[in-house]
Amino acid sequence: MVSSPGSGKTTLLEKTLSDLKGELLIAVVEGDQATLHDAEQIRTTGCEVIQINTGTGCHLEADLLLRGFDQLRLQKSSLLFVENVGNLVCPALFDLGEWAKVVILSVTEGEDKPLKYPHMFRAAQLMLLNKVDLMPSLQFDLDHCFEAASEINPTLKILQVSATT
Amino acid sequence: MVSSPGSGKTTLLEKTLSDLKGELLIAVVEGDQATLHDAEQIRTTGCEVIQINTGTGCHLEADLLLRGFDQLRLQKSSLLFVENVGNLVCPALFDLGEWAKVVILSVTEGEDKPLKYPHMFRAAQLMLLNKVDLMPSLQFDLDHCFEAASEINPTLKILQVSATT
Repeated sequence: MVSSPGSGKTTLLEKTLSDLKGELLIAVVEGDQATLHDAEQIRTTGCEVIQINTGTGCHLEADLLLRGFDQLRLQKSSLLFVENVGNLVCPALFDLGEWAKVVILSVTEGEDKPLKYPHMFRAAQLMLLNKVDLMPSLQFDLDHCFEAASEINPTLKILQVSATT
Repeated sequence: MVSSPGSGKTTLLEKTLSDLKGELLIAVVEGDQATLHDAEQIRTTGCEVIQINTGTGCHLEADLLLRGFDQLRLQKSSLLFVENVGNLVCPALFDLGEWAKVVILSVTEGEDKPLKYPHMFRAAQLMLLNKVDLMPSLQFDLDHCFEAASEINPTLKILQVSATT
């Protein structure tokens, strides 16, 4: 999961984990420059989670993840979510060995973001357009957003969501 | 000016330039991975502006700025605004020779960002808390935000603003 800071990655993940609880064996790696906040929030769902703090670092790398795996009881059937450091630029360029990159864009960030940060939207397989509940309070051009995303990545799947509502 | 993508840097700058028009000689450097959108938006104010596209790069550097200066008619009394690439991580670590770093945080990003991205809030002299018009639609803890910013940077000045209202 990759996105700008504050686009709703952790809340979206928390709701997803609560919905999937009991159906799948799930583990989570949380990446942040500092604090254990996100791991604490995810732990309330009952899922296994570890927090990796990158310090001045702007993204997770595969070897950091590998060290985190030692602390998780992963099984072959486990589903692993990795929440990267909030950064719409650098995490696009690093292969973590993930099955897919999911980019979260919140409507409060504006519809032009796929054009301005093309590497991230090109690297992603799925885009979650989050905070759609706030659209009535914003001047957000949904068509323009879809066109921008499709121009950068014609095969990108898009879902509209609201993690809080 | 530094912030996450979509926190309102360009709109805030556009309003500021319109308000200061005629009072000061102002020039602007816009940084983005791609597109000329921000320069085009700023040009509507009548100010001189150049756009630097960083490609895969995640921040502006001093030598990039210097090359841009050749295209601006800067005078000793000029006020120069530099809008960095939207990224709350990397631009904190690079000295552009600026008089001050202004960090913009929008309330939609959440009140914990100073704690999670401490390097940026430590590097800044002024924080503009933007999009305060949206606060009634959010669960944003203003006191918590001020405490977090002050914990990271006790001398950080904070102003509440709304670029669109």
